[in-house]
Amino acid sequence: MTRSSDGRAVPPDTVSLLTEIVRSLPAQVPFVPPEAIERRSGHRIELRLGANESPFGISTRAREAALEALATISHYCDSESHSLRERLAALHGVAMTNVVIGSGIDDLLGLCVRAFVGPGRAAVMTQGSYPTFGYHVVGYGGTLVSVPYRDDANDPEALLEAAERAGAHLIYLANPDNPSGNAWSPDVLERFLAQLPARRLLVLDEAYADFLPTELQRPIDVADPRVIWLRTFSKAHGLAGARVGYALAHEHVIAAFEKIRLHFGVNLVAQRVALASLDDPGFLAHVVTQVAEGRRDYERLASGLGLRALPSWTNFVALDVGSPERARRLAEQLLERGVFVRRASIGTLARCIRVSVGTPAERESFGKVLRELWSQP
Amino acid sequence: MTRSSDGRAVPPDTVSLLTEIVRSLPAQVPFVPPEAIERRSGHRIELRLGANESPFGISTRAREAALEALATISHYCDSESHSLRERLAALHGVAMTNVVIGSGIDDLLGLCVRAFVGPGRAAVMTQGSYPTFGYHVVGYGGTLVSVPYRDDANDPEALLEAAERAGAHLIYLANPDNPSGNAWSPDVLERFLAQLPARRLLVLDEAYADFLPTELQRPIDVADPRVIWLRTFSKAHGLAGARVGYALAHEHVIAAFEKIRLHFGVNLVAQRVALASLDDPGFLAHVVTQVAEGRRDYERLASGLGLRALPSWTNFVALDVGSPERARRLAEQLLERGVFVRRASIGTLARCIRVSVGTPAERESFGKVLRELWSQP
Repeated sequence: MTRSSDGRAVPPDTVSLLTEIVRSLPAQVPFVPPEAIERRSGHRIELRLGANESPFGISTRAREAALEALATISHYCDSESHSLRERLAALHGVAMTNVVIGSGIDDLLGLCVRAFVGPGRAAVMTQGSYPTFGYHVVGYGGTLVSVPYRDDANDPEALLEAAERAGAHLIYLANPDNPSGNAWSPDVLERFLAQLPARRLLVLDEAYADFLPTELQRPIDVADPRVIWLRTFSKAHGLAGARVGYALAHEHVIAAFEKIRLHFGVNLVAQRVALASLDDPGFLAHVVTQVAEGRRDYERLASGLGLRALPSWTNFVALDVGSPERARRLAEQLLERGVFVRRASIGTLARCIRVSVGTPAERESFGKVLRELWSQP
Repeated sequence: MTRSSDGRAVPPDTVSLLTEIVRSLPAQVPFVPPEAIERRSGHRIELRLGANESPFGISTRAREAALEALATISHYCDSESHSLRERLAALHGVAMTNVVIGSGIDDLLGLCVRAFVGPGRAAVMTQGSYPTFGYHVVGYGGTLVSVPYRDDANDPEALLEAAERAGAHLIYLANPDNPSGNAWSPDVLERFLAQLPARRLLVLDEAYADFLPTELQRPIDVADPRVIWLRTFSKAHGLAGARVGYALAHEHVIAAFEKIRLHFGVNLVAQRVALASLDDPGFLAHVVTQVAEGRRDYERLASGLGLRALPSWTNFVALDVGSPERARRLAEQLLERGVFVRRASIGTLARCIRVSVGTPAERESFGKVLRELWSQP
């Protein structure tokens, strides 16, 4: 018997049977959920502004679809998500063979990594950007290479250079970015793609793309086998708890995912509400407008306190509070008052707190607490 | 440019970037869903008796919980599934560190394989048993070893011998079994475990355990690091579309799963309905009684036609129609009449059609169609 780090006896055979990759992994979670933060801190969360969830509800069509779907919850989902893929293919002007559905972008990031990364293979991301990508890279035995933000934005040159140096198969880019809120202009993305070699793939996480104004949107081009586009229903559609996202890519990439994905992993109600939500563009437009208003509220709040709000194209705003230590302390103080926000634990963005756009009332409550805390010596 | 099997041009770089494992995988799906069978055959399915889904609805408590949870569908799930794990730990008399939640048993089978199997490592199952286990073994680059059924039941000696010969890390056992319906007596399982070396793990798929009479149930013992128990809400609880299952195992096995699992993969409504359903044992007992009655109906039906119904401890019955060819043809004829059943595509059970217990009306309809088809020359 050996001992684990907490001193308890470890059954030697079972642990030795783990694959080398899994055995050597540290205990890791991509995100501690707010519920666990509540349980461990003892502070009840009254204002949930840390997970970029939507406070603007769901489409009434989606709600009707959910109630209808509940009547058939004893059925397995259609593992091909045929209706939803058909609708998404039409929406994006691609073929159904260019679309795969997953349990949120996290699931699809896992597929990207499992298909293209592994022991001896590297992937590149920006340090402090969405941690779940790195979680998968490490989890599948790959090498994670991080580059710093440049002027609080993803740095195209740094990403490309690091990918060349490491011979990385995947480059992860959240655009709009999390947690900065920044978005590359289509020109920057264009230049990036012009320089991207054929042997590097871009995993383009567009979780927040619904919030982009038309002039910043770039058409999806699945004929380009170097790009995997990821979208979600978790943000603007208000369906984070449903767990539905999709990947758009060249049919040979999708075909590879089909060979390894969890075929019956998506909830049946989730498939139906996602489909119904797509049929309610008016609702989506309403949410996008509300979110833009919320960002302006946060910008005014920050400016009134002499803080800088990073320009955001998402449903959250990063407030620069000066230093990682200050950000950590402020997040703690907010939690003590029942306010849940996030901050990047590493990288230059760790000097910010990231606040999701709440309802007008939630924004007001948040402003009140922040003003109080910020005025303290 | 090379050509894919369908003759279209393949982007060489993208495909060459796939991991060796994924690149060499054949196109494979564990199950073609009934929706796809409808789409491809052109036959509308009126009687859905092929996926072992429950026709007996869900607990009213579960339904109430679902409606309540829908109001917070914009929130991410609690990635620790704390309430559900707490409840399950109490139910099975284990600690919360012995429980992990997944998007159905399929998801958990993937975790088992990912943690313990890989290139150069083998896993053993019975040929024609639940194909998703094999899907994962092959998908993670492992070697799948199959042994035949013996007298239409999983063969303890054959499984153990094959595992020794192949040096297999995992042995998969569905108990009760799918598609035979057979269950080992606790004695047989006891003897099997007595012979199981410390360096082999048993993945014990108990999807159908809710249907077992008390005398055939064996207590879960998570102190034994050689066994991973898998349970689901998809069968007796009637929640197949929700996608919730759980694994019970030694805490070091669960700790390994924690390092690699998809943390936010389970639907929020699903977590809540599963929890609520556990609080309605009366509903579960009602379903189990109904299912037992349904099995007796199918046995009577079979006996009236001179067919053998394999003894079943599940919510389905395998009807022995004599030969794989006959079973294939009968399944096709049933589909032409709008009846969806399954059959094992390989192994000795391929001579059977597997029919899920429907409502009394569905059973009667099925009986009518089967009698007609069987009386034809």
